[in-house]
Amino acid sequence: RSGEMAKLTQLIDNEVFRAYATYTTIVLLKMMLMSLITAYFRITRKAFVNPEDTASFGKGESAKKYLRTDPDVERVRRGHLNDLENIVPFLGIGLLYALSGPELSTALLHFRIFAAARIIHTFAYLIPLPQPGRGLSWAVGYAVTISMAYKVLKTVLYL
Amino acid sequence: RSGEMAKLTQLIDNEVFRAYATYTTIVLLKMMLMSLITAYFRITRKAFVNPEDTASFGKGESAKKYLRTDPDVERVRRGHLNDLENIVPFLGIGLLYALSGPELSTALLHFRIFAAARIIHTFAYLIPLPQPGRGLSWAVGYAVTISMAYKVLKTVLYL
Amino acid sequence: RSGEMAKLTQLIDNEVFRAYATYTTIVLLKMMLMSLITAYFRITRKAFVNPEDTASFGKGESAKKYLRTDPDVERVRRGHLNDLENIVPFLGIGLLYALSGPELSTALLHFRIFAAARIIHTFAYLIPLPQPGRGLSWAVGYAVTISMAYKVLKTVLYL
Repeated sequence: RSGEMAKLTQLIDNEVFRAYATYTTIVLLKMMLMSLITAYFRITRKAFVNPEDTASFGKGESAKKYLRTDPDVERVRRGHLNDLENIVPFLGIGLLYALSGPELSTALLHFRIFAAARIIHTFAYLIPLPQPGRGLSWAVGYAVTISMAYKVLKTVLYL
Repeated sequence: RSGEMAKLTQLIDNEVFRAYATYTTIVLLKMMLMSLITAYFRITRKAFVNPEDTASFGKGESAKKYLRTDPDVERVRRGHLNDLENIVPFLGIGLLYALSGPELSTALLHFRIFAAARIIHTFAYLIPLPQPGRGLSWAVGYAVTISMAYKVLKTVLYL
Repeated sequence: RSGEMAKLTQLIDNEVFRAYATYTTIVLLKMMLMSLITAYFRITRKAFVNPEDTASFGKGESAKKYLRTDPDVERVRRGHLNDLENIVPFLGIGLLYALSGPELSTALLHFRIFAAARIIHTFAYLIPLPQPGRGLSWAVGYAVTISMAYKVLKTVLYL
């Protein structure tokens, strides 16, 4: 068993893999933050979707008026879904990329740009910044993921 | 090649990794179950979103009335999306956590609480239970994921 | 460090793992394509959801009319969400399956059928094909994932 643990430790001690683990954890935590921001806007805007969530505001009609959509809540939810659509590919392709033996400096460049792009994307969505701010930050993260996918397919292709 | 397979087998034989694999498969299967529940409610409530899905109910106006939203269908769909938002971080952060060399008992505690919290969350959403039932089960799963993320960053941080 | 890299290389040189990496990258790229198709329909149908996205069409009322939903945009978005719901389980369960030591030929069968089913599902959704085209392609991908989950649990179960 100590032999197994040693091998696992070696995986996690590899610098590229450590960088992948660090940036993946950061972007996943950032995505999780969207849940808290959604809850914050739902509570401050009093805009809920589930009847059981408005029970503390009273019964019947007085509570029903809080079952409504709010532009700020919907905006955060769109940002959250955009995170899912873009961070899931990074999670999978990034892992395979980290295992495909890239140069450490190249890998760090990919991970850092992706994480920065997604953080900027969130600010661009929530403030909101005028376009093409949000569009560009989305495109940069997208392009980084495509670049990693290309390296993975070039290295491992087995159809 | 037998040497490679041996190493892969060692990874999957590690007890922490086996526990991760078991609980991840369980929560992903639970998430997949939401698709079947959605389909069940769509069919029993006759509430569809794609015109081609209502073709078996006849043509023209008679089928069009089934293109509608239903509160039960929407509720399951919200539960499904909440699963995606919370199980994706567990999938990624949990994998890195399992590779970061935690104590087996600590890891099991994390995985078991997360899986239980997400199963309770689904019941709380679908029954539905009065709040804060759903809120608390969501928060427990969220906190477990944050705890694993903290361990990962503490172990591997490489910026 | 060269020892570590050797071990990583051995993981990525394993044929089952290479097949997993190839097909996972393919289905994730296919999922990412949905973002581009959504953007294409939003621009050609002039159907946006964020006010800042319509600023280039003028100010005030003239731009506001482009804040609307379009059936084609919504259809692509549903296909994208269906991808997330089904490709995330494949990403996680497929990785654990690849590490659980399946026969190469069996693993290839699973990966190839899943990828084909998801590509057909996308065409069935976007054209759209009459049912049960889309339903069947969804069910095939779903069944393949269940089959891999069964193998994972049989191999590693540690509760």
